[in-house]
Amino acid sequence: MSGKIHFFKNLSPMAMAKFAPPASTIVIFDRNLLKYIPGFRKWLNHYPHTFAVSSGEQLKNLESFQNICERIHRDVGGLANQSWTVLSVGGGSVGDFAGFFASVYKRGLTLVHMPTTWLAAIDSSHGGKTALNLLGAKNQIGSFYPAKYTFLVREILYALPLASIDDAVGELAKIILVSKKSWPIKMSRPASTRQLQAQWLWRCLPFAIKAKKRIVRLDPDESKGLRQILNFGHTFGHVIESALGYTHGRSVGLGLMFALEFSEASGAISSRRAIAIRDWLASMGISRDVNKVLPISVNVARKLLLLDKKRDARGTVWFIVIKSFGSVERRLVPVDQILAVAKYRGWVR
Amino acid sequence: MSGKIHFFKNLSPMAMAKFAPPASTIVIFDRNLLKYIPGFRKWLNHYPHTFAVSSGEQLKNLESFQNICERIHRDVGGLANQSWTVLSVGGGSVGDFAGFFASVYKRGLTLVHMPTTWLAAIDSSHGGKTALNLLGAKNQIGSFYPAKYTFLVREILYALPLASIDDAVGELAKIILVSKKSWPIKMSRPASTRQLQAQWLWRCLPFAIKAKKRIVRLDPDESKGLRQILNFGHTFGHVIESALGYTHGRSVGLGLMFALEFSEASGAISSRRAIAIRDWLASMGISRDVNKVLPISVNVARKLLLLDKKRDARGTVWFIVIKSFGSVERRLVPVDQILAVAKYRGWVR
Repeated sequence: MSGKIHFFKNLSPMAMAKFAPPASTIVIFDRNLLKYIPGFRKWLNHYPHTFAVSSGEQLKNLESFQNICERIHRDVGGLANQSWTVLSVGGGSVGDFAGFFASVYKRGLTLVHMPTTWLAAIDSSHGGKTALNLLGAKNQIGSFYPAKYTFLVREILYALPLASIDDAVGELAKIILVSKKSWPIKMSRPASTRQLQAQWLWRCLPFAIKAKKRIVRLDPDESKGLRQILNFGHTFGHVIESALGYTHGRSVGLGLMFALEFSEASGAISSRRAIAIRDWLASMGISRDVNKVLPISVNVARKLLLLDKKRDARGTVWFIVIKSFGSVERRLVPVDQILAVAKYRGWVR
Repeated sequence: MSGKIHFFKNLSPMAMAKFAPPASTIVIFDRNLLKYIPGFRKWLNHYPHTFAVSSGEQLKNLESFQNICERIHRDVGGLANQSWTVLSVGGGSVGDFAGFFASVYKRGLTLVHMPTTWLAAIDSSHGGKTALNLLGAKNQIGSFYPAKYTFLVREILYALPLASIDDAVGELAKIILVSKKSWPIKMSRPASTRQLQAQWLWRCLPFAIKAKKRIVRLDPDESKGLRQILNFGHTFGHVIESALGYTHGRSVGLGLMFALEFSEASGAISSRRAIAIRDWLASMGISRDVNKVLPISVNVARKLLLLDKKRDARGTVWFIVIKSFGSVERRLVPVDQILAVAKYRGWVR
């Protein structure tokens, strides 16, 4: 179901045109790319129907959705039909937005993702989920709509700042921790230049994507619960993200730390194994000490945990625990049990 | 894929609660029903989460969508999850709207339709299509999202005025004309009281629905073109609906007349067979003379034909021709050929 990945060294209009024909493609792109990717405007000029958007969560409001739908419909409404393509060029928010647009405009056009952040390249562009926000609540509207193709462009990813790499490492660590398969390349982050780290991440991409797609394929629309293991580190990660405003990547990294502590406290994993994983996370640049997380109010944390879409019954959420490296399991856990561990370990007070 | 039909004599809260549990159901209903269905308010009181909407095309704007999404999310946002149900109670516009909402809220809730017009009962609630409008253009946004159940309530349908029956007969005639199966009951409309006509239509319902679902099942998302035969009578019917503002049902009836004339003019059907079908349509209450259609400007008609979502290449549309009773075929036809027949037969000038 999830689409084919194409790797490109550069922004190559000819090679890409085969998969997203310029005359019948609606390009939705993050306007920031015009500033920091040298050849971007030249590449864009090959496409007659391009729409700049401002990335970030405010893009995913219904107001922006209407506004951009109208801009696009005024331009291509009389031309486009269901054989057209939407090419989404941006990070997570642009992909969520453009993916949703592609899933509903004319009842669905072909979707192609060109992720332009490491986080989107490694994770968000491969899940087949699209999303808009509602009244400030994230991802309350959306669809399951996998991309037909994903373009990974080395030239773009290598131009990204170190912060973009930091932001991707949490999801990378997660996908490694939940995947049974052994990893064919050295799985610790080089403590060196941005270029070396980018090269390392570029080599990780195919394996991380394959591992994610293997899980998504088992349960594309989350109807069986199998896909929920991708939520490892996210239950508490979302609390951190909402309460403290950290980036998604950093929040997920901390969420992994918490999930590991919770797994240990509830007896799912031995202390010996937990220590080994904690050491490995540290080698990836993920640790609590470095990040100095402020304690969150217990009431705020409870409220946020109860907003979880994976909430099953009153006061109980599905939580993913780790049993050993590569092996996780979902459990129905009372929110109060999560809060008790969080309090004991100093995450909330 | 398309869901199960449940027939009810009356608005029975207990029987319906099995399929749409009150505590976890969002009821979206046409506020007019409060006026003309005696027991409606009492039935509604069994559901804690009810949202009145005003039916009509303006309901399907993105402004209304945002407004109603926010109303619903304020009420149930903290409670609802993907196991919840949307129960749509209304005619075509309410079903299009509520169906779209159900398909995207929390990335998809269970959808149940309770159609309250004859047209929706016979046709629109069984196709698995949802829709919103964009900049005044109909159904430019939408999804393929079949209902899990459809409730057909005799008490509601029997209370409808004769105009609702008139409005359904076009789609009923269409589904009979495109279905190979023989019809087990007398297929001409009784020229008598509203009650007798309603009884006749109620008996037609199971067969019409079965015939439609058989076609939808072959091609649920319109990807194979097979489903396009349901468009019989609609290509020119939509022109009439947009240009003259007639109801959908009446426009489709006239569209069937035109499609028959076009089929005859292009040699797809013999004159003898065409006359027999014309006589049968007259027995259903569908004829040109009775309706006295005003000629449409040829330029308006061309513009409207070129807006068709089924348009394939520049200036060419998929048109469904009839070859004999129960047998239709799709053909790629130049818009100019359609206009030539329309001009010759006095539909446009």
